[in-house]
Amino acid sequence: MNGAESLIRTLLAGGVEVCFTNPGTSEIHLVAALDRIPEMRCVLGLFEGVVTGAADGYARMAEKPACTLVHLGPGLGNGLANLHNARRAQIPMINLVGQHATYHLHHDTPLTSDIEGIARSYSKWLWMPASATEAGRAAAEAIIAARTAPGQLTTLILAADAAWSEGGIVPRIPSIPATPLPAPTTIEHAAAMLRSGLQTAILMTGNALYGRGLAAAGRIAAITNAKLFAPYPITRLERGAGIPPVERIQYVLEMAVEQLKPFRQLILIGAPIPVAYFAYPGKNSEIAPPKCDIFTLARAGEDYVGALEAIETILTPQRDVPITKQAARPSLPMGEITLQGLAAVVGALLPENTIVVDESMTSGRGMMTATTTAPPHDWLCNTGGSIGIALPLALGAAVSSPAKKVLCLTADGSAMYTLQALWTLAREALNVTIVIFANRDYAVLKREFSYLGIGDPGKRALEMFEIGRPDLNWTLLAKGMGVPATRVTSLDAFGRALQAGLAGEGPSLIEVPL
Amino acid sequence: MNGAESLIRTLLAGGVEVCFTNPGTSEIHLVAALDRIPEMRCVLGLFEGVVTGAADGYARMAEKPACTLVHLGPGLGNGLANLHNARRAQIPMINLVGQHATYHLHHDTPLTSDIEGIARSYSKWLWMPASATEAGRAAAEAIIAARTAPGQLTTLILAADAAWSEGGIVPRIPSIPATPLPAPTTIEHAAAMLRSGLQTAILMTGNALYGRGLAAAGRIAAITNAKLFAPYPITRLERGAGIPPVERIQYVLEMAVEQLKPFRQLILIGAPIPVAYFAYPGKNSEIAPPKCDIFTLARAGEDYVGALEAIETILTPQRDVPITKQAARPSLPMGEITLQGLAAVVGALLPENTIVVDESMTSGRGMMTATTTAPPHDWLCNTGGSIGIALPLALGAAVSSPAKKVLCLTADGSAMYTLQALWTLAREALNVTIVIFANRDYAVLKREFSYLGIGDPGKRALEMFEIGRPDLNWTLLAKGMGVPATRVTSLDAFGRALQAGLAGEGPSLIEVPL
Repeated sequence: MNGAESLIRTLLAGGVEVCFTNPGTSEIHLVAALDRIPEMRCVLGLFEGVVTGAADGYARMAEKPACTLVHLGPGLGNGLANLHNARRAQIPMINLVGQHATYHLHHDTPLTSDIEGIARSYSKWLWMPASATEAGRAAAEAIIAARTAPGQLTTLILAADAAWSEGGIVPRIPSIPATPLPAPTTIEHAAAMLRSGLQTAILMTGNALYGRGLAAAGRIAAITNAKLFAPYPITRLERGAGIPPVERIQYVLEMAVEQLKPFRQLILIGAPIPVAYFAYPGKNSEIAPPKCDIFTLARAGEDYVGALEAIETILTPQRDVPITKQAARPSLPMGEITLQGLAAVVGALLPENTIVVDESMTSGRGMMTATTTAPPHDWLCNTGGSIGIALPLALGAAVSSPAKKVLCLTADGSAMYTLQALWTLAREALNVTIVIFANRDYAVLKREFSYLGIGDPGKRALEMFEIGRPDLNWTLLAKGMGVPATRVTSLDAFGRALQAGLAGEGPSLIEVPL
Repeated sequence: MNGAESLIRTLLAGGVEVCFTNPGTSEIHLVAALDRIPEMRCVLGLFEGVVTGAADGYARMAEKPACTLVHLGPGLGNGLANLHNARRAQIPMINLVGQHATYHLHHDTPLTSDIEGIARSYSKWLWMPASATEAGRAAAEAIIAARTAPGQLTTLILAADAAWSEGGIVPRIPSIPATPLPAPTTIEHAAAMLRSGLQTAILMTGNALYGRGLAAAGRIAAITNAKLFAPYPITRLERGAGIPPVERIQYVLEMAVEQLKPFRQLILIGAPIPVAYFAYPGKNSEIAPPKCDIFTLARAGEDYVGALEAIETILTPQRDVPITKQAARPSLPMGEITLQGLAAVVGALLPENTIVVDESMTSGRGMMTATTTAPPHDWLCNTGGSIGIALPLALGAAVSSPAKKVLCLTADGSAMYTLQALWTLAREALNVTIVIFANRDYAVLKREFSYLGIGDPGKRALEMFEIGRPDLNWTLLAKGMGVPATRVTSLDAFGRALQAGLAGEGPSLIEVPL
């Protein structure tokens, strides 16, 4: 067995079953190994940002890593923006990068690049095995590193000669290190805060925001009157009727400050102290009120779910606190397109168990409100602020969850960064309905400009914010990559298109000019 | 004057007149400065790989740097693949990246990233000025670094508070350091080699391949019977009737070895010793014959043109050696599409002074032969092996040379990486005619696979090499971004479309299914 084959077989043995690929020459031996090992599902992307974003979406839903396969430093570079987003979300992922044969590197040929330097910018674990014999062990270590809580980005660089040489070994996969609970005194302190009667907010991330973790948090909130929050960059939030309600911290600084104003105590679970995305001249970056007592219950790497359940045990033995939020949908609106109307249509039609991927930016601000009491669903967002994640994230989520529908809400400016994902959606016939909010603006930048107190943007600044002239035609772009598409100009038509998209098989795109 | 404004005014004072932009929030103060300073032409791209590739194309033709403006680490990451190509081509370029306000960095908010780490992978010069006062000096230094021979990539990271604070200064721009000649003994040694009567090849890069440098090389070749070569990754090659002929080293190892086989001596001007792009099991990577005497006349950073002219002076006082290559075009072929036929159409129709951007990969192998004696023109290629350079390069070349036509020959797989460039071509109404060779394959990977001696690729490997299913429809993709497009299915139709495209104003795209 050569090094490449031992690497792929080790990944499979460790439960890594999907490889999002955009290989090149230096990865050919890995391609040849994948050719011989049909158990690893390969999904081709035509741009590496698609590949890395898809691996992120896959991991958020599957709760385990996929691998990616990209070409040397430049391929990794193309994947970097969505690796940045994944790093922020603490996503388990194994990035495989081909390197020149070790003895070829000194020639410094055109594709030679500082792969390690690039990978170091996001990787928690990075290794280039020295030989075929080490390739399997490197893969095993990568799996463990990726799956260590809360989830880590890893990069395994495989030199061509380590890939093609014989001597590959599939090692035993060590067990994943147990995720430690916070110290008992920490848990007790948080429980005491919750029992104090003071207004308390709990700001949570990771697996505290769905499943067992959110259920425990919901019961704690019901018992103590604490309020649950998620940071603005939501990785995965379970929500809808019957699910404990979690409020998202707003992007706009003043609105976020307003949200946390009532609270005397803030308990953090995996989340950092909330601050503004950006600094503004003369403005304070902190969001929580100055007198708020901020306490970290669980840090990244600790057991969020266990911590919540431990607190619940301290607070009360009662396990079944009813969640009062009842199912309710807005009625299906008709007529002229408004942002509120679009949100209401989504609220009226969202099927149970849908995965919503939301990078709708300024156009989709009403979406979460309109779906608060829709049937249960998951909500996935941009986690690192680098726009262009929605289409790849939807792709990866759909690969992980073939039985579910995916609704991808994206702004036009964002979608342009990784529009190549449309092709893979068509190729894999994935059940993703895409809504493009075509406001033909980097509207968030207009907002940020006006926020600086330097007046309104002039003609030349506006030309950097407005992406009409020419208008992008998303129905043509989608059809050009094999995705059926339609443009809607009324809420009635949007409702019909959304219903058809969510009911149908395979991808479809709805362009909504705003 | 704030730091941002002093930076832009310094760049202008140093002759930097074009900014290819895809800004975000942390660059808003630079956008505000650009808003006030209309002398700097801003060209918006909807993806950063477009922006960096365009700055490359601009610099190749303008022989001076453009600047780029990108958003923090993720924006820079998206630009990295074409920065890699530009690094290989030793292109002068000034990359401007916005950073969070210095006092905001410690909050580690979502967009915080290791900008320096990413920039270090390609930058010859990198600086984050500490204050508004330093911003102008940083810009001046960046200009000097970028313009130091043969041309260097630079990155200037401007923190938001350095951008918005008052105290900006526009300093005097120091003069660009003179490019040193190689040592006299080195020049004499090369001249002696050329006089020896032994079969000699001269392998040249940079400004030895056009203008005064190529003219001198041509005269030397005519006098001494030496043969002129360019490396496979051509940055800019002047060619056509009346221009000294330069042969391109072939990509395929065996063909390259065959090309250099006759030579007993090899003189290098700016070029490294030629080796294969990749290592192959059991194959030698070197291209020149083992007994060939390889001598470096000029290294990167030395004066290639001066070295050639100095040699010419030693060899003979005669200045006007006739170049024998006469103008000749193939006749315009008709009928069924073949690769040779497509090349002949281009050869028959190429207008004088056209800038040809060639990333046609396996489909365009006949193009250079068919245009050898076409009217004089420039030929620009992928220089770092990271595909997806053609459309951005054509965009930048067109911005630099409004009086010229640009013909962009690109493979479909390559073009997909940076297809967003089409939008900017339409927006700026640039005279670029694009030919998409739609073979629906990463054909070069198929070739590399078969080259490894591990048999033919199987079904799963082929699925990673074949990018049909679904077929990309380039006429829809182009129209979706505002570029008129047509699909041709005969050489007659290709000829008509090419003629119309090259005669018309603004961009157009011709899809050639293969």
